[in-house]
Amino acid sequence: MTEPYRLTASEALSLMQKGELTVQDYAKSLLARIKDRDEVVKAWAYLDPEFVLAQAKKLDEIAPEKRGPLHGVAIGVKDVILTKDMPTRHNSGIYADEPSPLVDAAPIITLRAAGALIFGKTTTTEFAAVTDGGPSTNPHDATRTPGGSSSGSGAAVGDFQVPISLGTQTGGSTIRPGSFNGCYALKPTWGAISREGLAQYSMTCDTLGLYARSVEDFELLSKVFQLADDAPIPSAPFSIKGAKVAFCKSPAWEKAGPGTQKAFEKAQEILKKSGAIVEQIELPEDFLKIKDWHANVLAGEGRSSFLGHYLFGKEKMNKSIVSHVENATKLSRKAQLESYDGCARLRPVFDELASKYDAIITPSAADEAPVGIANTGDAVFCSMWTILQVPCLNVPGFAGDNGMPIGLTVVGARYTDLHVLHAGKAIGKLFESEGGFKSKLL
Amino acid sequence: MTEPYRLTASEALSLMQKGELTVQDYAKSLLARIKDRDEVVKAWAYLDPEFVLAQAKKLDEIAPEKRGPLHGVAIGVKDVILTKDMPTRHNSGIYADEPSPLVDAAPIITLRAAGALIFGKTTTTEFAAVTDGGPSTNPHDATRTPGGSSSGSGAAVGDFQVPISLGTQTGGSTIRPGSFNGCYALKPTWGAISREGLAQYSMTCDTLGLYARSVEDFELLSKVFQLADDAPIPSAPFSIKGAKVAFCKSPAWEKAGPGTQKAFEKAQEILKKSGAIVEQIELPEDFLKIKDWHANVLAGEGRSSFLGHYLFGKEKMNKSIVSHVENATKLSRKAQLESYDGCARLRPVFDELASKYDAIITPSAADEAPVGIANTGDAVFCSMWTILQVPCLNVPGFAGDNGMPIGLTVVGARYTDLHVLHAGKAIGKLFESEGGFKSKLL
Repeated sequence: MTEPYRLTASEALSLMQKGELTVQDYAKSLLARIKDRDEVVKAWAYLDPEFVLAQAKKLDEIAPEKRGPLHGVAIGVKDVILTKDMPTRHNSGIYADEPSPLVDAAPIITLRAAGALIFGKTTTTEFAAVTDGGPSTNPHDATRTPGGSSSGSGAAVGDFQVPISLGTQTGGSTIRPGSFNGCYALKPTWGAISREGLAQYSMTCDTLGLYARSVEDFELLSKVFQLADDAPIPSAPFSIKGAKVAFCKSPAWEKAGPGTQKAFEKAQEILKKSGAIVEQIELPEDFLKIKDWHANVLAGEGRSSFLGHYLFGKEKMNKSIVSHVENATKLSRKAQLESYDGCARLRPVFDELASKYDAIITPSAADEAPVGIANTGDAVFCSMWTILQVPCLNVPGFAGDNGMPIGLTVVGARYTDLHVLHAGKAIGKLFESEGGFKSKLL
Repeated sequence: MTEPYRLTASEALSLMQKGELTVQDYAKSLLARIKDRDEVVKAWAYLDPEFVLAQAKKLDEIAPEKRGPLHGVAIGVKDVILTKDMPTRHNSGIYADEPSPLVDAAPIITLRAAGALIFGKTTTTEFAAVTDGGPSTNPHDATRTPGGSSSGSGAAVGDFQVPISLGTQTGGSTIRPGSFNGCYALKPTWGAISREGLAQYSMTCDTLGLYARSVEDFELLSKVFQLADDAPIPSAPFSIKGAKVAFCKSPAWEKAGPGTQKAFEKAQEILKKSGAIVEQIELPEDFLKIKDWHANVLAGEGRSSFLGHYLFGKEKMNKSIVSHVENATKLSRKAQLESYDGCARLRPVFDELASKYDAIITPSAADEAPVGIANTGDAVFCSMWTILQVPCLNVPGFAGDNGMPIGLTVVGARYTDLHVLHAGKAIGKLFESEGGFKSKLL
């Protein structure tokens, strides 16, 4: 039998449902994997193996007919998401020694109610608001960053330490680590999953993100979180043959390195070969403004979001967060409001455009994960989609010049999350088999 | 000397700064007022007098040069706002016996850093999301509702039990209790104050609200929360003479009862008599749609916001919240998105309109507080402004047919909060002296 830690959530769940794997044995396998790898990957901000095993034991004691749809599925939680039984530190010096909050964020309440095993807290950059990285490393090459700000969540799932983890995205904090660590990553439509209990940076952009190693796992989670599109999902698998797939270089294309450029080309070839009708789309010129609008919204909203922390302990706070509170860029309210209103005007424009295609594919990151862990990389390929509030799915499968994983993003109109997953499942199988990435992870 | 409990925050602060009043003596005066009145008003969900006095003692021990700008100012906190040293129950049967969260909401961190005395938790309707009232009563007439959902916060400030309190507004939950209890109430521009740590209902609408008995107190709080408009505030007081003041009946006018109709007329007479140039404005026809859009946004966002609580204990949950999660109205994503986009389109339209006037005045509520505490009243006059995300200040001064207080709202363009306060201070002094309300509160 495959070591349990290698399984996707759906696979492990199936064994647990059939009584062929206990939650405790599953947890032990994951803990052993973490023990083997933690010295290198350092994905965890908080992990108490004994507590995990005690929780697993409780789950095993639940009568089979009373078990939830995620019974025993192990989930890592980014350390900016509140958990009632583990500390939440936001990777902030301010809160390192404060009493720990004892409350579950809304998504944690939902996951626990579904029977999930909340496993531990994964590393984050400070308040999920900066690109200063460390200590986590990329599981595929420890000299490289796992990306951020959901550094530990991306690394832990990419490294088979847990099958599912939670991140957040305000710029590119979920999708970029998905690409860098070679796993699937989903940033749902803004508002589709509650963000109560997540650290607040930008109300307009902050979104819960999810990591997994298969789209089936996201389908499982989408049922638990009750994601719902208007149009029903076809019962048949998405047919690549005949599908109308648009490739969108996006206004950030000049930042695309060789790895991303090649993945973007290769994806088109693969899809065409399988019978898809591939088109290029260029966004209307107004979309060029979104990059600056996104920066303005983050600066304006960060100004009030971080005020309390600033007053409490600004000397222990990252300078870029301090600069938000102090409005160092002298952002005017007029510019902030124009940024809100500009993005709001373009949301239905993109939705309308997206409705003409079965899928839209765009880069996830500038290139494979760069060398060094001090910086987690650039959100430039993600921030437009985040503030457009549309669903984004990172699909892995490609390789960069140094053999590191590279993913591409399937995006859709707002509240077509399930359709993005439906298309992404078929596209992902194709990219994973033909994209060229070969994992060296044992 | 006036009993300390009768003072506004600014007045009490001034005495404490001059060393003429200790925080402990101030707290004792407030606690004595509460002891006298609590049996009737029932404004508190949690209050521990000994803990309050211990906190007051700690504040008294701080050296004068180290005291904050709100040193010793007592603040009541709506029980949907997290506090690290007091339970937060959301008036929900689900969380009545759960361990209490130990974390401060962002505004509480800010207020504590400024030296405020966090006094206790005030009553709310369930998750600040329903209109089922009780047990709180209106301090001006115990047979009437104090309004909701910030029931206890409005009643406690109206009744001189604390000078300042925090509420929230998603429909009309801050402004309506302001009008019903005869106090000032401020719902700032959406996003101007962090909402991290407030119960989540609607990300688009949820806003922290503030209560006080003078606009000076809001000016004090606006400094602490670092509210900032683009245009500087004139150093001279707002001049009613020559001011261009627009009266806006709003699309809800057909719901206005005799008290609100008379207040609306009388306000115009008073302002004209003082030399203001009074105009009527009618909003473009599109604004008629906002009422339904607001309902759609709350239904759509409530669906995900309450999912966790629902899964945890739906049998203990108000039916109207259950209906959100179950999408009882069969709201489509299309209708939800059209509602977002419609409101977003009208925000700059209203801002532009507002920029033509020195102040805009509109009703706060349908009438004086109705008899009965089982229902907290109708948000119909507030919900449009909430989803337009503009600053709203309830200004008291008028009386209904039964002698109960009635206020009117000064609204402005987004991020003109300080200008709304500047105008509201002068307008409030006029309405309070000539509006006709006579308080019977001892």
